[in-house]
Amino acid sequence: MNTMPLSAVTVLDRIRVVLSHPSHPGNIGAAARAMKAMGLSRLVLVTPKLFPDAQADAMAAGATDLLVQAEVVESLAQALSGTVLAVAMTARRRELAVPALWARDAAAELVSIAAGEDVALVFGNETSGLSNDELAMCRRWAMIPVNPEFSSLNLAAAVQVMCYELRLAALDPGAPPAIAGAGEIASHDEVEGLIAHVERAALSSGFLDPASPKRLIPRLRRMFSRAAPEKKEVDILRGLLAALEKPLPARNANKT
Amino acid sequence: MNTMPLSAVTVLDRIRVVLSHPSHPGNIGAAARAMKAMGLSRLVLVTPKLFPDAQADAMAAGATDLLVQAEVVESLAQALSGTVLAVAMTARRRELAVPALWARDAAAELVSIAAGEDVALVFGNETSGLSNDELAMCRRWAMIPVNPEFSSLNLAAAVQVMCYELRLAALDPGAPPAIAGAGEIASHDEVEGLIAHVERAALSSGFLDPASPKRLIPRLRRMFSRAAPEKKEVDILRGLLAALEKPLPARNANKT
Repeated sequence: MNTMPLSAVTVLDRIRVVLSHPSHPGNIGAAARAMKAMGLSRLVLVTPKLFPDAQADAMAAGATDLLVQAEVVESLAQALSGTVLAVAMTARRRELAVPALWARDAAAELVSIAAGEDVALVFGNETSGLSNDELAMCRRWAMIPVNPEFSSLNLAAAVQVMCYELRLAALDPGAPPAIAGAGEIASHDEVEGLIAHVERAALSSGFLDPASPKRLIPRLRRMFSRAAPEKKEVDILRGLLAALEKPLPARNANKT
Repeated sequence: MNTMPLSAVTVLDRIRVVLSHPSHPGNIGAAARAMKAMGLSRLVLVTPKLFPDAQADAMAAGATDLLVQAEVVESLAQALSGTVLAVAMTARRRELAVPALWARDAAAELVSIAAGEDVALVFGNETSGLSNDELAMCRRWAMIPVNPEFSSLNLAAAVQVMCYELRLAALDPGAPPAIAGAGEIASHDEVEGLIAHVERAALSSGFLDPASPKRLIPRLRRMFSRAAPEKKEVDILRGLLAALEKPLPARNANKT
């Protein structure tokens, strides 16, 4: 079941991930897996050193379809043909001809343009990055914030981060996954029933002085609200309370 | 040079990344590299299948110091000792005892608690994830938004995404990297000098009618402001204008 709205799928399909001169086929496969897990599909390879390759297939896991569909071209100019915006990922603060964007802002810009036109996100070689000529073909340059003392991001890891940002920019992930199945959450009334039961037990046991209740019940209510107990847990607690409310001659006998 | 404020470093140092029962030593190394590139340092391994291992070292690249310092323990309980918040990463919508958080919100919560106390982010085995007993030890569960049709995220890729979110939650990345070096940007006065030169040339050539200037110069100013030309580019354009302002008998001769 695909829970994504169609328009978001279309946007992600208009974003090409271009790997220029990748050296390690394992990185191509890992990049394909990262793309597919985030809903992207268009991989373009500029003169990869080794492709296709068994290591690329192995690292792609279930994303080998992206490798089969990948376009292999001979220049970045070919890879960018038909796009209206190309964003170059760069790791170094070299002579920047344009101010660089941070990754998140670059993703937002790519997605906004991809609503109507093809765009590209361009990654360079693992060691040497993009050439100055390649950088000059890209209207925007972007950087992933890194530890200045260790800025060595793996190529596939950089693709993963950017595809994650693209997915979030394209799609509202909605509410967090709902609680379902065996751990069904207790209703408000069930939790209130539990709290009333605790209060009764606290009064009958003498623990709670009705003349000086302090903030015992409000505190318990806050705790249960935070805990969001399951129906089963409420049942267990109420069963325990009921058991404790009964006189226990055996336990008392042992104590004397 | 470390450009991070000390407090942010301290926050990231209070976040443990726990890998429970990792099968592939390459993933341990790649996770260490991902952590270090994002400024995290504390790796805890619960009964790794193979560790230390040459493949972990190879994938860690320059982050082998994190592997050397990694704590290896026998249970998740040991890994979490001393923490006040543990967030479990989960990929599946199984019976959730607590509502899951999205990755970004989980990172914000971890960072806010890590300002004062130790916290942990817990990842399960590559194939089987975390056991129910392990999940029950974590107060929060978190998910990375994925393509519902292909939710297969590599372990190290998941660590990369979360460490990236933790870095952004802990640190304001500040303004994008400044322009520097060979491509030195033209000053305001230099750009204005260029615009004035264009205006002069437009008037002397008869292209611009001073009686009806329209919005030619304001438009050009806006374009140059957007382009943020470099000093060298301004020089080239002014050189070109100067050359065009001179009468060119040769060219004219050819045309007649």
